Amino acid sequence: MAICTAVVKQLRAIVGRKYVLDSQEDLLCYSFDGTFAEFMPDLVVEPGSTEEVSAILKLANEHEIPIIARGMGSGLAAGTVPFGGGIVLPLNRMDAILEIDLLNMTATVEAGVITFDLQTAVECHDLFYPPDPSSIKHSTIGGNIACNAGGPRCLKYGVTGNYVMGVTAVLADGRIIKSGGKTIKNVTGYNFVQLFTGSEGTLGIITEAILKLVSKPHYVRTAVVAYDRLDDASRTVNAVLSAGIVPATMELMDETAIVCIEEAMHLGLPVDKEAILIIEADGFDQDGVQHEIEAIARICQETGASSVEVAKNEAERAELWRARRSVGPSLARRAPNKLGEDISVPRSQIPEAVRRIKEISRKLELPIVIFGHAGDGNLHPNILFDRRDPEQWERVQDAVAAIFATAVDLGGTLSGEHGVGTLKLPYLESDVGRISIEVQQLIKQALDPKGILNPGKALPLMEPSSHY
Amino acid sequence: MAICTAVVKQLRAIVGRKYVLDSQEDLLCYSFDGTFAEFMPDLVVEPGSTEEVSAILKLANEHEIPIIARGMGSGLAAGTVPFGGGIVLPLNRMDAILEIDLLNMTATVEAGVITFDLQTAVECHDLFYPPDPSSIKHSTIGGNIACNAGGPRCLKYGVTGNYVMGVTAVLADGRIIKSGGKTIKNVTGYNFVQLFTGSEGTLGIITEAILKLVSKPHYVRTAVVAYDRLDDASRTVNAVLSAGIVPATMELMDETAIVCIEEAMHLGLPVDKEAILIIEADGFDQDGVQHEIEAIARICQETGASSVEVAKNEAERAELWRARRSVGPSLARRAPNKLGEDISVPRSQIPEAVRRIKEISRKLELPIVIFGHAGDGNLHPNILFDRRDPEQWERVQDAVAAIFATAVDLGGTLSGEHGVGTLKLPYLESDVGRISIEVQQLIKQALDPKGILNPGKALPLMEPSSHY
Repeated sequence: MAICTAVVKQLRAIVGRKYVLDSQEDLLCYSFDGTFAEFMPDLVVEPGSTEEVSAILKLANEHEIPIIARGMGSGLAAGTVPFGGGIVLPLNRMDAILEIDLLNMTATVEAGVITFDLQTAVECHDLFYPPDPSSIKHSTIGGNIACNAGGPRCLKYGVTGNYVMGVTAVLADGRIIKSGGKTIKNVTGYNFVQLFTGSEGTLGIITEAILKLVSKPHYVRTAVVAYDRLDDASRTVNAVLSAGIVPATMELMDETAIVCIEEAMHLGLPVDKEAILIIEADGFDQDGVQHEIEAIARICQETGASSVEVAKNEAERAELWRARRSVGPSLARRAPNKLGEDISVPRSQIPEAVRRIKEISRKLELPIVIFGHAGDGNLHPNILFDRRDPEQWERVQDAVAAIFATAVDLGGTLSGEHGVGTLKLPYLESDVGRISIEVQQLIKQALDPKGILNPGKALPLMEPSSHY
Repeated sequence: MAICTAVVKQLRAIVGRKYVLDSQEDLLCYSFDGTFAEFMPDLVVEPGSTEEVSAILKLANEHEIPIIARGMGSGLAAGTVPFGGGIVLPLNRMDAILEIDLLNMTATVEAGVITFDLQTAVECHDLFYPPDPSSIKHSTIGGNIACNAGGPRCLKYGVTGNYVMGVTAVLADGRIIKSGGKTIKNVTGYNFVQLFTGSEGTLGIITEAILKLVSKPHYVRTAVVAYDRLDDASRTVNAVLSAGIVPATMELMDETAIVCIEEAMHLGLPVDKEAILIIEADGFDQDGVQHEIEAIARICQETGASSVEVAKNEAERAELWRARRSVGPSLARRAPNKLGEDISVPRSQIPEAVRRIKEISRKLELPIVIFGHAGDGNLHPNILFDRRDPEQWERVQDAVAAIFATAVDLGGTLSGEHGVGTLKLPYLESDVGRISIEVQQLIKQALDPKGILNPGKALPLMEPSSHY
């Protein structure tokens, strides 16, 4: 679709001429995300305030122009690729940390703030914003909220949604809604904060948020634990949590992940083991944290660990986390392409999920590396392949379908922290069921009757429901 | 409205003759809740399964008969009083604990399970279901979820909504929706679990839930801390939390509350003090818990406490909690009636909120007792009065309005854990704003187009929105 000159003129009047981009080079930059998908938008408009977003949406709604809000475009589900064109709306100019409230332990931020920048800012005040997606250094709070992003620390601290206390969002017709606030308890009205969180820009565009902070833990101990058998690593996860210990993280890497990292980084990781866990304990009492990591080490040994090493200092710890974060990139040494999935299963099903994924890998003759947040059942099976080979690409599709089927069959779900976007839409009904999709569509229809907000993402495009 | 004989016959066929109640005595029992409000329903129907609820709703929707789902009717906002008649639907027959999953630490329960019964059942397995509303011994999980109930322990552990991982709900037209599950992370589809939680039976009727459990803390220490000045008690709350300590509870009682309890129970509480705090630390490491209560005691002394006493044993601790739980009932010694409110303010505003409530009390010449969950900013100002005096009753209404205005003015909200029900509806717009109410109505309209589910509760009855 082409956007008519009169509308472009009005958009320029709203945000200023230099914030309306229409050159092919500029449009190209906003045509893709962290996946293989791409599609050129018709226009890129960069708003500088909630009021500007409101004015843009009012105009877009009137003219039924799709609006795809976007942070840094690091999404892994093609949730911000503008299939069908329309206006991409990067919120990056709105990057102010408006307030850090020390007494109430909250931060009020604009959507475009980089998550890492917020963390750094609050840590100066001995406060802590726990959610830590891998993309933390470049993804935005707005994007994190739109996808309800996770990360390793979510085991102890919970996901992004657990830290969103209030939002300012712009509805499809430009109306501005504020919901929630700085109160810890709030049961006044429906929970719009959590309805907007994770809705991937399909119900409204979040422009500001009030985030909960906690006190920054004073002490951290990190252990790297090796296992001859991956099953034992899974058993450790359940044993530690059943003992009443909630570590900050329990990260799993399988043997291929270990080897890839080791080849890339030469850290001395045990390349002959089936799995390692990175387990971190944190807290405010030095002895308490020490007791916790010792108790964890004991349980690891009881559940079959072949070695438990505790990082001696911050440098060693930083290196371990650098290793964990480099799993994704290091896989590039093995194959030209990778496709990372994001299934979540009940914790008890991790061993079975791992077994079935390995079986899928064997059957379809595709290397699948398994790593992820074992403590909360969120696994990232990464399929390695060569996109240039169409036959291989077909097998990749089969592997993805089989991985999703496994997750659902084990009582799990398609996505733990990446969102549905476009890529998981074909599998959505197998997970949530027909009625759930219909109810999603009813709510979408109620809030965005013309369907301009990120159309075709998170839920299938509307077909008129015959039921009501 | 009268329900026609043919419908009554069909309802009897669905649930069985003895579960359709229509005698005046029976109807009377379901005409009130924990407030002054009452209204006779036309019929009481007691379903025994989700399928029966579904069949009842299908029929009710067809005939446009209001359905008021109900647990034990202990609500404090007239949320289950059947104004306008219709069918009251007690879910008490559905009281099965369907599963306690030790590995995944979840409980799957029917809506009618008494919260205390669930807690007792899971504690046998060394597990813990933290939400602890005062009504815990008689209120149901279904009711707790419908109102997103709180309690003292929510300071550390969060409210009911933080423990709801999955729900089975019946929609207005009888369709059954299942949402969420046993996975800790789940971003597949809109967050219906949290949309239904706290929606007070207006969007669907929750018949089953999957609840998150945690490990039961092994050690608990409880301190009772007295203050000459109530302000200092408030300062303590902020000081403790700012030190990175999150006690399980920080409960505040003002001098009137202390005196009333002491008159009723003779526990030796300091009746000459402006406030006491009951602070509890819990955890898995005996030394850690001991260090925590000692650190708390030090902070209390630094912030002006006149005495800090730590309970020596479980009997002393139980007595303190019996005292805290008896604040409400003990107020009956002071006046024939009381009206308990439930405002929630940002923690930093507790001192100002208390000052303003005391000013309201003075100005309107009505005793107002203040107690509540100071740690999370949730206060229960209780107005004492004589309902038989119409002039006094009018002043009570003024006091309620002034208390709500105070909460909103301080960045707080009308309800921390009781819900909006009917009683807070007139104040709703002053808190959440017009647009928020309109969006609630759009969602209500989408999911319950005939408006049969608990009509007139939680949000105002629909007026056609001119905006869309």
